[in-house]
Amino acid sequence: MVRTILAAVMLCAIFMSRSEAQVQQSLNLMPMPAKVQLGNGRLLIDPSFSVAITGHKEPRLDGAVDLFLGQLRRQTGMPPIDMKVTNSASATLVIQCDGGTKEVQQLGEDESYRLEVANSGARLSAPTTLGVMRGLQTFLQLVQTTGDGFAVPAISIDDNPRFPWRGLMIDVGRHFIPLDVLKRNLDGMAAVKLNVFHWHLSENQGFRVESKKFPKLSGMGSDGLFYTQNGIRDLIAYARERGIRVVPEFDMPGHSTAWFVGYPELASGPGPYEIERKWGVFDPAMDPTREETYKFLDVFIGEMAGLFPDQFFHIGGDEVNGKQWDANPKIKEFMHAHNMKDNNDLQAYFNQRVQKIVSKHGKIMLGWDEILRPDLPNSIVIQSWRGPDSLAQAAKQGYRGLLSSGYYVDLMWSAERHYLTEPVSGAAANLSAEEQKRILGGEACMWAEYVSPENIDSRIWPRTAAIAERLWSPQDVRDVNSMYRRLGEVSQRLDWLGLTHNSSYVLMLRRIAGTDDVSSLKVLADVLEPVKDYTREETATEPATSAKPLNRVVDAVRPESATGRQFADSVNVLVAGGSRPGMEARVRALLSRWRDNQVELQPMFESSLLLKEASPISQNLSALGAAGLAALDYLDRGEPAPAAWVSQQLAVVEQAKKPQAQLLLVVVPAVEKLIQASAGQTASSSSSSPLLPAK
Amino acid sequence: MVRTILAAVMLCAIFMSRSEAQVQQSLNLMPMPAKVQLGNGRLLIDPSFSVAITGHKEPRLDGAVDLFLGQLRRQTGMPPIDMKVTNSASATLVIQCDGGTKEVQQLGEDESYRLEVANSGARLSAPTTLGVMRGLQTFLQLVQTTGDGFAVPAISIDDNPRFPWRGLMIDVGRHFIPLDVLKRNLDGMAAVKLNVFHWHLSENQGFRVESKKFPKLSGMGSDGLFYTQNGIRDLIAYARERGIRVVPEFDMPGHSTAWFVGYPELASGPGPYEIERKWGVFDPAMDPTREETYKFLDVFIGEMAGLFPDQFFHIGGDEVNGKQWDANPKIKEFMHAHNMKDNNDLQAYFNQRVQKIVSKHGKIMLGWDEILRPDLPNSIVIQSWRGPDSLAQAAKQGYRGLLSSGYYVDLMWSAERHYLTEPVSGAAANLSAEEQKRILGGEACMWAEYVSPENIDSRIWPRTAAIAERLWSPQDVRDVNSMYRRLGEVSQRLDWLGLTHNSSYVLMLRRIAGTDDVSSLKVLADVLEPVKDYTREETATEPATSAKPLNRVVDAVRPESATGRQFADSVNVLVAGGSRPGMEARVRALLSRWRDNQVELQPMFESSLLLKEASPISQNLSALGAAGLAALDYLDRGEPAPAAWVSQQLAVVEQAKKPQAQLLLVVVPAVEKLIQASAGQTASSSSSSPLLPAK
Repeated sequence: MVRTILAAVMLCAIFMSRSEAQVQQSLNLMPMPAKVQLGNGRLLIDPSFSVAITGHKEPRLDGAVDLFLGQLRRQTGMPPIDMKVTNSASATLVIQCDGGTKEVQQLGEDESYRLEVANSGARLSAPTTLGVMRGLQTFLQLVQTTGDGFAVPAISIDDNPRFPWRGLMIDVGRHFIPLDVLKRNLDGMAAVKLNVFHWHLSENQGFRVESKKFPKLSGMGSDGLFYTQNGIRDLIAYARERGIRVVPEFDMPGHSTAWFVGYPELASGPGPYEIERKWGVFDPAMDPTREETYKFLDVFIGEMAGLFPDQFFHIGGDEVNGKQWDANPKIKEFMHAHNMKDNNDLQAYFNQRVQKIVSKHGKIMLGWDEILRPDLPNSIVIQSWRGPDSLAQAAKQGYRGLLSSGYYVDLMWSAERHYLTEPVSGAAANLSAEEQKRILGGEACMWAEYVSPENIDSRIWPRTAAIAERLWSPQDVRDVNSMYRRLGEVSQRLDWLGLTHNSSYVLMLRRIAGTDDVSSLKVLADVLEPVKDYTREETATEPATSAKPLNRVVDAVRPESATGRQFADSVNVLVAGGSRPGMEARVRALLSRWRDNQVELQPMFESSLLLKEASPISQNLSALGAAGLAALDYLDRGEPAPAAWVSQQLAVVEQAKKPQAQLLLVVVPAVEKLIQASAGQTASSSSSSPLLPAK
Repeated sequence: MVRTILAAVMLCAIFMSRSEAQVQQSLNLMPMPAKVQLGNGRLLIDPSFSVAITGHKEPRLDGAVDLFLGQLRRQTGMPPIDMKVTNSASATLVIQCDGGTKEVQQLGEDESYRLEVANSGARLSAPTTLGVMRGLQTFLQLVQTTGDGFAVPAISIDDNPRFPWRGLMIDVGRHFIPLDVLKRNLDGMAAVKLNVFHWHLSENQGFRVESKKFPKLSGMGSDGLFYTQNGIRDLIAYARERGIRVVPEFDMPGHSTAWFVGYPELASGPGPYEIERKWGVFDPAMDPTREETYKFLDVFIGEMAGLFPDQFFHIGGDEVNGKQWDANPKIKEFMHAHNMKDNNDLQAYFNQRVQKIVSKHGKIMLGWDEILRPDLPNSIVIQSWRGPDSLAQAAKQGYRGLLSSGYYVDLMWSAERHYLTEPVSGAAANLSAEEQKRILGGEACMWAEYVSPENIDSRIWPRTAAIAERLWSPQDVRDVNSMYRRLGEVSQRLDWLGLTHNSSYVLMLRRIAGTDDVSSLKVLADVLEPVKDYTREETATEPATSAKPLNRVVDAVRPESATGRQFADSVNVLVAGGSRPGMEARVRALLSRWRDNQVELQPMFESSLLLKEASPISQNLSALGAAGLAALDYLDRGEPAPAAWVSQQLAVVEQAKKPQAQLLLVVVPAVEKLIQASAGQTASSSSSSPLLPAK
């Protein structure tokens, strides 16, 4: 698999036309548009910049232009009385919009646009307001700093998305995320052309929506941390202004303990229930055998169908362990009477009943993999956490599907790994064209065991921008180096939207350090990543809960270390005998800094409890710094390192590979390579390193 | 004057008891409380932290505790389901509040509190909810990072403010400042115990309040940039929850062009009028001779008196140039008929009339120095931009007053200079005790010619915290070194409130650089300050206007360079022959970095128009770096520098002293000292340097 992907990447790089490759090099567009042609010259952006809207008129279009101008002013530092909307045909940017959009944004509405920029002005044309919105984001990404002021290069872009469903799911059940935090993430979504916010609203740990019909749902199931219906309407309007649909998810029949705190009669076992504080899959599940359950859901879903205008309604449906069902004689009796052979049959029955309710209230049902059973109508949509093969299976049976497997941003994978996750791959690649069309797109998923309002942005961004490109851009856009270069730029641009993925890092380090001088701590933190997949769960010394502070080093460090990646790249060049100007000097500077850092940090391990657990890692980093420098000395002298030294250093490396405090020291494999190279050994394949995720 | 103040500081330092000095050294409190006694041990702050409220109950008190807990969680990274309010007498923090506060916060309400912290728990007692609010802020400032976790030291504090009126004025007329920006500044005010937000709401450049009686005021006078009445009520409630009064100012009869855009009949000269874009004092003024003017103001002030609940109402009253009055024959005639000898008499007549209207609507009139005339009743309050002598004069005549002279934060003075501005000084120091009581306090003033939502926080903070200490703490708290140490800490703490004085600096530099790597640009920007006083106005190559972007280097750099101050301190020690460990090495490292920086920055001067104007300064900095290093070499060798070299370098220094691009290179005087010392000369007194403000 690894080799197939790499080969594809290389072929792609070879066959890409020269101009296209150059465009990707020089522009900071993400997602990369379908077609880009660079021209000559550039359009200056100054306080006299103006916009005219021609063609179709609707308030949402005016709103989109206002948002665009606000963002352009922010990027360039212009006051609000500059950069006007005019009626003049000589406006700097003329927008031609051919038609309106639906009152409730629909799946598959046209999002294409054409943007032409010349020295004298720019023109953005699109069949719909949605296309205008996408094109305006492209324009914003094109604004550059030049010796003559701000400017957009002369360019011609024809663009449209590959998939119609490009989502971000945020779990607000496990940790409550306030509306303002969601709003800034909607801004981030709009910036990278994502169009579905999937709001995971109920969990064992919290029920987050005000229900007027069943006030005890949030009243007893949320610790007071929930959204009012007005707040929800406000967020939906905010999303709509940005061309984003809002799909609510109420997980059932499992993941539903929080419902039972106020309404224990819904559950399959005797109460009372409390809000769950731990993480995992728990026993409580709704009772699918009682008619009262469906009466309740009918009223509840009816209320929510009115609150959330989107056509789709997500019922979750995942991870029911069946223990409460097994323990309830009346449920066993019901199953026997209805000829159900196991709990899957019982859940399928539940899903059929719920699907009828959802459908009755005018919505299309959406659920996780588990809901897929031939007894449900073809209209439902499957969201797959299992992978493209599962999507292919659904598509063959006529079901539409979304990929989320490979896009779980809580697993702390690299942007590269998400980026190279292709919805139309594996069995899905062999589907007929019509079947392939049933693959609607995908969603990045932010599960929230370890996120708070403070660090959620850093778990979502910038990696989700790479997923956004996978879902928007042509399938053959997959140059990882280009992606990383542009991702760095996007990450900085997102700061202007108020996203805190960069700023919060420093604040959290300051808190840990107990001082504002975090330079030494940052040297360490910059080469750390949280452990991957579910290792944090598995290596916890005491069970994590929703009441535990998320203020540790593992909560602050970034999911992917840019320093680590760049260091590894440089080491690869060096051990292959190559070098670029200054490269060895930069590598040596980093190694020296690491070697000396432990001495500088030492007092802080004493003065900060939060930092103490990272002390052994800092010692390892210093040892690796010294080892790496010595290895480079051997390499430079062309003298093989003594075997005894090498084996001693490799022992240090082995020690440093072990996660500590649920953190990975990401520079270990590269230093190992240096040591091996200094001994004249071929570096062991980095793909076998436990530090790199298997692909 | 300089010598008197310095002598006072030194005496103060000598006579301060040892323990008090130690307290000031080790604690990060600002403003410093009236009495502080450190104990032994500390109270740990963990997720189980709880608060009980005993005694008086009111919603505002509950709200204050909620805000406190939110802030404590933010500082320590605890989730919202931790740190509860309980009824238990064994709560970690027990609050005893003796009595309520007025529905509308009054001038002079008791703000005192007593805070006792021991290993086992803490107790905060206060006569009023206001005192509780102040004490809770002190508690937050006491939270430290320790090897055992977060903790507050065992301590006993008795505290109350020196002055009852401690304000911040923000001018939203010249540049509109949105409500969210004001709110975060209210959070900052509360953190340093300021209690009056003076809202300067109308100017020649904009009328910022919705009037339902006169909709054209904001409708035509604001470019659409104004506050709705609901927004204003919301802000007033927000301020009240933080123990802050909101005093509105509507400047009249001058500074009022924006009124005349919609209502030209109010003016003394023929219209039509347009919103003013330039800065300065302009001719248009209200016509004090027409009865219609007072009818208008009666209705308008009546409406505003209902909207703004505070007891005080500010009518401005400053800077009427009288030209429109001189040019209007009917006004001349009126003056003649009423025996008025000059425009001052006419304005005094206007003020008398307006005072009666203000009083009729239940408010006390407040105005700038110019309104002081014996024909106004003693109830009015004078806000002095002239200085303590003017305050003393008013106090002798029975008027109450506020000091703002010396607290204009738009003038880009050092925190030290603001800090040492004492309301009870000069003639005011000789007032009787009763007269002195008429000095109510003071206000930091943020005039807004050169501030935007992006950089306003950096013009207000952290320097305003030093002013807050002057107005709260005992008069003899004036150790400048202690102030700067604590100010640095306060500045970092304010980041947790969402203030952007630190974060915006980096964003603005990134915009200027056009790249996220701003390390070299920061080396330069860190030693730059905007020109002081009104020099920016005076040295502008083209007139500044409200439509000009505030995105230049001068808009980004901090009003006071910490690097510059610390460098100057180190150089003072070095040239006096003293040294502390590592000091010379640090000075040399800085000088080398400056010397080499120009080469690194060079490409950016070509690629960024915004940066280009700073190119000569960067060259100067590099020259100074080289000169400083050479001077240190001479000093270290104990060999006098050659006269020719010295005079050559001093020429470089003279060149570098000149402001460029409205920026000052603040390290010039210290490098000059090094050069002079290397030549064996006594350093010329730094107080004579044009770079340091005269005191």
